[in-house]
Amino acid sequence: MNYPGRIRVVQYGLGPIGLECIRALFRKPAEAIELVGAIDNDPDKFGRTVGELAGVSCDEVVSDEAKSTLHNLQPDVVLHTTGSSLEQVQSQLLQCILAGADVVSSCEELSHLTEQNFLVGYELDQAAINFGVTLFGTGVNPGYAMDVLALTATGVCTRVNSVKVVRRVDAGKRRLPLQKKVGAGLSCEDFKALADKMEIGHAGLQESCLMVMKGLGIEEGYVRQTVKPVIATATVETSDLTIQRGQVAGIHQVAVAHKYGREVVSLELYMYVGADNPTDLIMVDGDPPIRMEIEGGIHGDTATVGALINAIPLVSASEAGLISALDMPIPRCFLP
Amino acid sequence: MNYPGRIRVVQYGLGPIGLECIRALFRKPAEAIELVGAIDNDPDKFGRTVGELAGVSCDEVVSDEAKSTLHNLQPDVVLHTTGSSLEQVQSQLLQCILAGADVVSSCEELSHLTEQNFLVGYELDQAAINFGVTLFGTGVNPGYAMDVLALTATGVCTRVNSVKVVRRVDAGKRRLPLQKKVGAGLSCEDFKALADKMEIGHAGLQESCLMVMKGLGIEEGYVRQTVKPVIATATVETSDLTIQRGQVAGIHQVAVAHKYGREVVSLELYMYVGADNPTDLIMVDGDPPIRMEIEGGIHGDTATVGALINAIPLVSASEAGLISALDMPIPRCFLP
Repeated sequence: MNYPGRIRVVQYGLGPIGLECIRALFRKPAEAIELVGAIDNDPDKFGRTVGELAGVSCDEVVSDEAKSTLHNLQPDVVLHTTGSSLEQVQSQLLQCILAGADVVSSCEELSHLTEQNFLVGYELDQAAINFGVTLFGTGVNPGYAMDVLALTATGVCTRVNSVKVVRRVDAGKRRLPLQKKVGAGLSCEDFKALADKMEIGHAGLQESCLMVMKGLGIEEGYVRQTVKPVIATATVETSDLTIQRGQVAGIHQVAVAHKYGREVVSLELYMYVGADNPTDLIMVDGDPPIRMEIEGGIHGDTATVGALINAIPLVSASEAGLISALDMPIPRCFLP
Repeated sequence: MNYPGRIRVVQYGLGPIGLECIRALFRKPAEAIELVGAIDNDPDKFGRTVGELAGVSCDEVVSDEAKSTLHNLQPDVVLHTTGSSLEQVQSQLLQCILAGADVVSSCEELSHLTEQNFLVGYELDQAAINFGVTLFGTGVNPGYAMDVLALTATGVCTRVNSVKVVRRVDAGKRRLPLQKKVGAGLSCEDFKALADKMEIGHAGLQESCLMVMKGLGIEEGYVRQTVKPVIATATVETSDLTIQRGQVAGIHQVAVAHKYGREVVSLELYMYVGADNPTDLIMVDGDPPIRMEIEGGIHGDTATVGALINAIPLVSASEAGLISALDMPIPRCFLP
């Protein structure tokens, strides 16, 4: 909470999460945080006011010219919510860095660098250091439910044999894009075809798994990941979709890291329409053993927005470069 | 985990927690962390070897000369476990600072400064800054169960109305000093006399409450605290004590902070012999609402040791001065 005066924020990306971030920011005290602009290249959005799109009292006009807007506004922090692929958002992040702004991004691949993304991440890290800004990727998952909470659960253990996390989400209670992302309504054949091309499933599970390993001080290693369909055993309806019995309702995705000849970290994500008993459960086999559960699970859409906006005052006080949740202070709600 | 090479540690204080810290350190990889000495002024302890007292393979002789021992050994970190009162341990902490060592201490009053301790804390902070070392107070409570976890639970909330924490500990499963601390076996009159002199109850609840408030960005305010006895409704026996029906079994201690005309933070600690359903429960009234529970509760003695030793690599990488858990990275087990 070590920010000198009001934090000036630009929202980059006005999808559902971006708009919800704006609404949440407007509920914070105006003397602490201020939205100074918004960027989106969707022709349905730029040129209109933030107020019109987000339903808040704000006359700022949405810009599609990121570079000039960022240079003109000189925000302290950019809230970046445009995509999951680091390669695809790299140039957007660079624009923010070059404008001298700290960045909090929902880009899943930014939360922790995998080998595949190491080079892109390295370039962003160097640029951020050169421009004296902080770059941080977070959200509910990756960024909280299956990594930060899992590590925090081990914080009082003198010894840890293994950490197992189970997250069960009823995709039917989430937005349509998430339902699509987990394959709800697909046939098994279509699911399999997409899975073979790695085009289905939750982005970020590998990142979470590597983050937990690194947090525990274990040399990073190979993470084995599987994505399987969960098949609807009866017809289920959401407000947007009808899924017939035998169609795909969603995913069961697992990431496991081995070390010392055993499973050290195991992350299991069930995300399907109709999932009953939603939960976030963390089991630490250690001394003392810890069984931590969030009853009913954490609602992902609101929680992603919470993770993003709560990071704003924390990145403001962080050192320059690409940092991960391992470098950040404990997460906490920012001015309740 | 940003330490260059092996961390050299001195254990200052060889009570039950200190000895358990030594045992836990000896289970960590020797190339990462090394016990280089131990200090205690108990005539039953100094002059004997660490190995003899802690049951580990170590020939270092326990010293009662803190100043010269610290200057000779030049440890990276001192694990300090001698007392709860900041005023009483101030000179010990200064010895560590003057020897250029980072300090992780179990002193409850060091975890977060109250108004009463502000001056002592300020002096220690200035000394630590001048000598370029970090001073950090932690443990399971304060330091984890009722503050760090409570804040972490709010980390994905866009809004928090209130945070309520309930910790129920069966004191009968803890060490005798803790049973005595909560008044187990006293008559109601004796309990009341001690409570009036503020000589009974758990040290650190006020600190936890203030830490949660500060973490949420709420200006610190007055914390109202009450300590009431829990009366045994039947005779209960521990391995050390027999408590008759009608005698005190332990405490029900509450700390509450108000703001905006309502209870914002409420911490309830039940610590008595025979407490059933031990638990650590955190309820966030916010968006999203969070109900986080650690089934069976966190076992305090082991967890205090875990909190202390897990902080070692984190303070090594922290900035100079007296810091609190609010400044620290997320807690995590250090080399499982």
